[in-house]
Amino acid sequence: MKIVESDFQAWMGGIQARTEAALARLLPPPHMAPARLHEAMRYATLEGGKRVRPLLVFAAGEVAAAPPERLEFAACAVELIHAYSLVHDDLPCMDDDVLRRGKPTCHVEFDEATALLAGDALQSLAFQLLAEYRLAEDPRIQLKMIDLFARACGSRGMAGGQAIDLDAVGKSISLPELEHMHILKTGALIRASVLFGAHCGSGLTEPQLESLDRYGKYVGLAFQVVDDILDEEGSSVTLGKTAGKDKQGGKPTYTSLMGLAGAKQFASELLADANAALAIFEGRATRLAQLADFIVHRDR
Amino acid sequence: MKIVESDFQAWMGGIQARTEAALARLLPPPHMAPARLHEAMRYATLEGGKRVRPLLVFAAGEVAAAPPERLEFAACAVELIHAYSLVHDDLPCMDDDVLRRGKPTCHVEFDEATALLAGDALQSLAFQLLAEYRLAEDPRIQLKMIDLFARACGSRGMAGGQAIDLDAVGKSISLPELEHMHILKTGALIRASVLFGAHCGSGLTEPQLESLDRYGKYVGLAFQVVDDILDEEGSSVTLGKTAGKDKQGGKPTYTSLMGLAGAKQFASELLADANAALAIFEGRATRLAQLADFIVHRDR
Repeated sequence: MKIVESDFQAWMGGIQARTEAALARLLPPPHMAPARLHEAMRYATLEGGKRVRPLLVFAAGEVAAAPPERLEFAACAVELIHAYSLVHDDLPCMDDDVLRRGKPTCHVEFDEATALLAGDALQSLAFQLLAEYRLAEDPRIQLKMIDLFARACGSRGMAGGQAIDLDAVGKSISLPELEHMHILKTGALIRASVLFGAHCGSGLTEPQLESLDRYGKYVGLAFQVVDDILDEEGSSVTLGKTAGKDKQGGKPTYTSLMGLAGAKQFASELLADANAALAIFEGRATRLAQLADFIVHRDR
Repeated sequence: MKIVESDFQAWMGGIQARTEAALARLLPPPHMAPARLHEAMRYATLEGGKRVRPLLVFAAGEVAAAPPERLEFAACAVELIHAYSLVHDDLPCMDDDVLRRGKPTCHVEFDEATALLAGDALQSLAFQLLAEYRLAEDPRIQLKMIDLFARACGSRGMAGGQAIDLDAVGKSISLPELEHMHILKTGALIRASVLFGAHCGSGLTEPQLESLDRYGKYVGLAFQVVDDILDEEGSSVTLGKTAGKDKQGGKPTYTSLMGLAGAKQFASELLADANAALAIFEGRATRLAQLADFIVHRDR
């Protein structure tokens, strides 16, 4: 077990470093005009986060025998969208947060207008990467990937989840409503990451793709449940963002609706569901299984 | 001349109505959850503007014998991006404008967070349309269109021009700097509109495509010069937005740098350049010529 664990850590470190290097290369250089905007885009994206979405892209890509250079572009596109969403979420008119990944948030480090534009331009750049480089054998599959991705980002995906989240502040909402919100807000992009990895390869059957989508759905939800647990238990130092923020802000969370023990139980069930969805691969989806475990058992 | 004029007016009205109907159909319905977000997206996009960019898509598409149903999707994508850029530009941290197209701006009618998310989701929806529907004979050309479009929106296109614009407030900048800013801020999307129309068809030669790109560059710049002239001369009632705003805000404009007469002269020269770029089509680019004329001689 210890060997498996260290092997996973090494794999994870490798993907994280590869993603970081690719992002640094694909983002406009900081000295290129408009320099302040490009600096803000880099500030918001580089040296940050666990790169969970890129890890999912690569892990799913492995199952589909996808060429790593394709996965790299797909992983960067997903991470650019994630970075843009954090920049916009942190703005004063949204969550009004000043700390992110242990650093001042983008609008604090730069200014609100620059942060707004940096987020906008990060979204555009994500779509540019998906269209500029070859990501799939068949260009029609690549168009399908962009379509899927745009939906995951849009009003019935991430941005929609964000809108429901805002609307829920200070209100009492039901567990199914909370689940629906998170399936859109964080789940959509996580599911898209898994399917991206799969589509960069070829030869997966429809039932296999559907299983991966189910895996992505469970993992996406588990990710959020664990986020709420960590927010309840953790300190700002460990998390690198303001702890207890959601609770203070009157936002409904899994821990507020289910209690801490209930939320932990739910996370375990989602992990079991995610693993069950991988059964179709008969043990060939090791990285995805390890990642699900990592997402549920992480401490930050 | 009068017959030509009324024929152009009828054509323009037809495209505007067609674009409006297509946008109303392609935007998520207002009652669909998250309803407030969808209402804001529709509010920001429908019943507004001259639809200059869709007109350019259709006019260029005519030259390339492109199927109108493809042009419709391309026109809507461009208009969604334009609408998103206006919503974000009007936000308090940007231009802080309260009036747009004769109505309260999106964040005044809804709220800042909703306006931010509506802009974000409009950008995603634009890319979704470009990937979901068939826009070109060859899917590889369609990917190229999305790449081109993403660049026109991004940090070295529209968002970048916006950043330079913000940075220029209260500063004295040179005419070449002002031109560079506008080529990015409004020019990039206008050029992309023209090339979109062309790529929806087929059979144009490289020199013809290059001529269209040149036409788009001149028309885009002329559009901005005339905007500055109207802002100097017009009233808020005619313009449907706050007149004299740029001047008051200490923003450099063509009229502040060249004087009113100088700016008018420059607009005429750009119109001549745009027409010269169409010479390669030997009279088959009537709508594009009429549109350039319309853009330069409009009174709002």
